[in-house]
Amino acid sequence: MELVERVLAGERLALARLLTQVENNTPTGREALERLFPLTGRAHLVGITGAPGTGKSSLANRLALGMRKEGAPKVGVVAVDPTSPFSGGALLGDRLRMKDVAGDSGVFIRSMAARGTLGGLARATAAVVQVLDAAGYDPVLIETVGAGQSEVDIVRLAHTVLVVDAPGLGDDIQAIKAGILEIADLLVVNKADQPGVENTLRALQAMLDIGEQRYAQAGWKPPLLRASAVTGEGIAEILAAIRAHGEYLGESGGRRQRDETRLTREFEALLQEELLARWRAGTEPETVAAVLARLKARKISPGGAVRELLG
Amino acid sequence: MELVERVLAGERLALARLLTQVENNTPTGREALERLFPLTGRAHLVGITGAPGTGKSSLANRLALGMRKEGAPKVGVVAVDPTSPFSGGALLGDRLRMKDVAGDSGVFIRSMAARGTLGGLARATAAVVQVLDAAGYDPVLIETVGAGQSEVDIVRLAHTVLVVDAPGLGDDIQAIKAGILEIADLLVVNKADQPGVENTLRALQAMLDIGEQRYAQAGWKPPLLRASAVTGEGIAEILAAIRAHGEYLGESGGRRQRDETRLTREFEALLQEELLARWRAGTEPETVAAVLARLKARKISPGGAVRELLG
Repeated sequence: MELVERVLAGERLALARLLTQVENNTPTGREALERLFPLTGRAHLVGITGAPGTGKSSLANRLALGMRKEGAPKVGVVAVDPTSPFSGGALLGDRLRMKDVAGDSGVFIRSMAARGTLGGLARATAAVVQVLDAAGYDPVLIETVGAGQSEVDIVRLAHTVLVVDAPGLGDDIQAIKAGILEIADLLVVNKADQPGVENTLRALQAMLDIGEQRYAQAGWKPPLLRASAVTGEGIAEILAAIRAHGEYLGESGGRRQRDETRLTREFEALLQEELLARWRAGTEPETVAAVLARLKARKISPGGAVRELLG
Repeated sequence: MELVERVLAGERLALARLLTQVENNTPTGREALERLFPLTGRAHLVGITGAPGTGKSSLANRLALGMRKEGAPKVGVVAVDPTSPFSGGALLGDRLRMKDVAGDSGVFIRSMAARGTLGGLARATAAVVQVLDAAGYDPVLIETVGAGQSEVDIVRLAHTVLVVDAPGLGDDIQAIKAGILEIADLLVVNKADQPGVENTLRALQAMLDIGEQRYAQAGWKPPLLRASAVTGEGIAEILAAIRAHGEYLGESGGRRQRDETRLTREFEALLQEELLARWRAGTEPETVAAVLARLKARKISPGGAVRELLG
């Protein structure tokens, strides 16, 4: 397949085209993915998440450029935006793409907006990361906008998860933090040039102290770092911590474990999709329609409708 | 079933117990849901969403109490927190429950944290709303923490969706707004007692103006309201707008359409779950294990593994 060869030869335009095929799950995309899959597993996958307003995108850009400066030949950035069910994703996408075009040709940035179903977005993201990995991009940063379960699900199976916070966010965000803190391998307080940073650091330190025992068992305590994507403060320290976590994962067997969990989940999601497609193909549409009509009249519940159709 | 009778007789403790059964999808819960389902479809379902830091929870509380004052005998509030994969949800949950206990016994508040899978949370939320509906709670407010796709999916099929914004939030949040704006039936700028409210109102008005044509076709333009959950400003206006939207939905047929879409989606999610369970029951675990081993060794892709198992 010519497109795959051109991607492996390093052609950016071919890569962009192939990613579109893969995102849209076309036959060409599926075939390419199958061919590229044995080449995956080399890239260090770095997830970047955190509440809105923490400046994750700017930080991801800084980190990608920093990785290049420190010697990575090709760095991938996948910016996932599940918060825009319709058109909103383009806002962030365009912002990122502009920086890409204006900047370093060793950085490849791909923006992904929601595509119908959440499952669809997770699958497309996994596939895009696999193509970048196979194409020699290493590390690959996976950045999510928002801080919902969907974003958490997408980044939590990266090798290294960076949770970003910032001073001056509200109460709701404190509540969110308690949840996403538990998936953090690194904690970064961004916008360290703004007032209130000491308070945020103190609050996070207190939360980290609570988890002390668990971290001691795991052998890795998330470092708490301060940074400013604007001034560049702390970027080198974050890059060093990402490398250190990568080494820890290699030594502890954690990397292999995360890889296996991620692949298994991806397999399960695809299996579920395919089972539904096959069931649909083997069922009379009229039968389904009759049951759905009774459901809509509230004569049977959704669960009752399923039991009736599957017998 | 005694528990169902007691719920229908208005016992709050029985309701709390039944909701736990329903949330955990136990046989008792499923049977109760089946019996209660024909009684559903009466409550006005009001979704409340928006970025973190906008004060959605306080607003939901104010609205619930306002609805009671205006004559609703029983108001339900379901607070969904998909952002806490582990333990974070309890923070918000407890805060809400305290207000409940201290306050009006005509308001029933249920907090829901993430339960393993997102699909699990969506199903559990739908079931909890159905029980409250059948038990005579009307309206039922469904409030989500966070602003990811998952939260959007959960509230978008309510009859009336209220999107909450607040002054002084960051850039990321502007990007999010573009997405969730499209699901809004009502737009509320909360924290109107804080500086910057005029700017936020202006920005939202500009976004509403862009959608003018679409709104004209649909016959409903989301009103833009300012409120303060702290001072009580604007609460009466929001309640009036929620009622007006309910009337619009009844007249336009939109209510029935949203109900049918919601039930169909719920059915599809359950169907998919059940198909997977049946496939598992009919497949040798050794066969699956052998294919998974090859997947983990990256000899086949997740898609290839599915094709191999299903033939």
